[in-house]
Amino acid sequence: MTSTGSLVARRRVTLEEIAREAAVSLATASKVLNDKPGVSSITRERVTDVLQKYGYTKRGTAQTYAPTIELVFGALDGAWPIELIRGAVQVASENGFGVVITESGHEHAAAPEWIGPVLQRQPAGVILVASNLAVDAKYQLRSRNIPFVIVDPAGDPADDVPSVGSTNWAGGVQATRHLIELGHTRIGVIAGPESLLATRARIAGFRSAMDEAGLPVDEELVLRRAFDDEESTGAGLFLLSLPNRPTAIFATSDVKALATYEAARALGLGIPNDLSIIGYDDLQFARWAGPPLTTIRQPLYEMAQSAVRLVIALRAESSQPGRVELATSLVLRSSTQALT
Amino acid sequence: MTSTGSLVARRRVTLEEIAREAAVSLATASKVLNDKPGVSSITRERVTDVLQKYGYTKRGTAQTYAPTIELVFGALDGAWPIELIRGAVQVASENGFGVVITESGHEHAAAPEWIGPVLQRQPAGVILVASNLAVDAKYQLRSRNIPFVIVDPAGDPADDVPSVGSTNWAGGVQATRHLIELGHTRIGVIAGPESLLATRARIAGFRSAMDEAGLPVDEELVLRRAFDDEESTGAGLFLLSLPNRPTAIFATSDVKALATYEAARALGLGIPNDLSIIGYDDLQFARWAGPPLTTIRQPLYEMAQSAVRLVIALRAESSQPGRVELATSLVLRSSTQALT
Repeated sequence: MTSTGSLVARRRVTLEEIAREAAVSLATASKVLNDKPGVSSITRERVTDVLQKYGYTKRGTAQTYAPTIELVFGALDGAWPIELIRGAVQVASENGFGVVITESGHEHAAAPEWIGPVLQRQPAGVILVASNLAVDAKYQLRSRNIPFVIVDPAGDPADDVPSVGSTNWAGGVQATRHLIELGHTRIGVIAGPESLLATRARIAGFRSAMDEAGLPVDEELVLRRAFDDEESTGAGLFLLSLPNRPTAIFATSDVKALATYEAARALGLGIPNDLSIIGYDDLQFARWAGPPLTTIRQPLYEMAQSAVRLVIALRAESSQPGRVELATSLVLRSSTQALT
Repeated sequence: MTSTGSLVARRRVTLEEIAREAAVSLATASKVLNDKPGVSSITRERVTDVLQKYGYTKRGTAQTYAPTIELVFGALDGAWPIELIRGAVQVASENGFGVVITESGHEHAAAPEWIGPVLQRQPAGVILVASNLAVDAKYQLRSRNIPFVIVDPAGDPADDVPSVGSTNWAGGVQATRHLIELGHTRIGVIAGPESLLATRARIAGFRSAMDEAGLPVDEELVLRRAFDDEESTGAGLFLLSLPNRPTAIFATSDVKALATYEAARALGLGIPNDLSIIGYDDLQFARWAGPPLTTIRQPLYEMAQSAVRLVIALRAESSQPGRVELATSLVLRSSTQALT
């Protein structure tokens, strides 16, 4: 599988021989080998060339692999994996760990093949993103004492699996309350598949905020299918073409919000004059949208930081912390305004 | 630096003892240890718990680390690192390599500290993104026979460093020709710092295309300072407020193009009716912009794929391939139109 080249048994060249061929002292050759100062650039280059010619590398380093933490994504699609990678790399490198990125090749459930290479790398810990951990994988990691944490699980995580999420229900409440405070009462929802726990929680938050304000939910306005981007534009066109169209839309992701912008543009509706839109995630492009998107910030960077801290803590202790939920927050930009 | 926990010398528990404590046969304990089928879930869980209790792991696996390739970024900022990560992970995993992500903490030159942990992980190869390789780092990698490749170098790469870039000059020509073909003659340029080779090449491409069409370049319209996003909006405001403003703008990145959208919006200019804008990169959000952004596609995904293939090839052969440049292409969307 790996092309590591053929290993040919041969006598190891000595550093003395390297030094002789490079016409330097043994001390100089040693300095170059060990990256010590006190050697001119030209000499260093000459010695390096000879070291390289014979494939001479430092001895006794084969066992000192720096530990790594595996960050396993179903798929590296979309704009949010980079936020998680940034957070994980920051905390991991502070603690001397490298972060290995793996794609398991399946969006909401890790494929069985992903675990082989991960186990072979003997990581210090594994972080699974938006993925239910298959029972077999759980045993395989446990039997090797490799701690693991799930970030933003797609379904209800098992009690015995530590996980880091964010307050999706509260985020749904925050988004909806913001629209209600602006005077909106006919509010549409463009959501992802309800198979995702996160989506169910965000919609539940929407219902709670409507209920709290004494507003009825028009079920015709709550669209929750497995839309891809283009279908979200279709969902927007559907909602905005209704005789009694909503004056505001809560999209459960920033991408869906921008797809709804597209629908509004197609129908000649101005944002926020004719329609307020609030998104969810606060991905980087939200601030570059036209107009800049009001949204609920999901703290992806901090979630990944927490997951790495948790996996490091799990290595040291045998305790199994439960679920951590980080707070979402409202990010006010220009896509929402008071109903006039 | 690393918190790997203290190693306490203790007698290793035998698998027989594990089996006895879990009340199973040695064969069953072995099956669980080696992830073999033929054990019920309940039994597997019980044995796993005992294995875990004693920290019992498989023997003889300590030397079989799967090889990794290091992907070193100056900073994981912006929307383009994820494209490179995706490409690198795809080819690396096909070849049995894990990809370790490292942030060297400096945008256009790798900081000296990054290399320590990288060397300690003994990677099969190193890919440096948009970074000049410090001379010391080069020697350190060479002396350990670790092949390295630079992706999208910020400056002219040394002859002896294999690198993968894209056709930045041709991209500048493509962008400018597209605008000229639409009838534009007063074309503004909003560019990044000229310290970047890529930027110099794109501007040179712009000049060549103007020259080819017999059009003079108005130097007042060519802005090339180290803008951040907000300053790009300022650059757009400057250009669009000129008495004889440009009818089209070539922004040397998609982010700068969207900042220019912002400037146009602020001045009440419609895109593409009053102003054509073309970007550069074709990052994911370009298609979600309002209107969707016409841009030059920089093949980041394919560049990372090439870099991984190159680093793997360098492991097998002693040849030192030179510079690879992948082709850019025009992506037509809705932000440009014929001058009326």
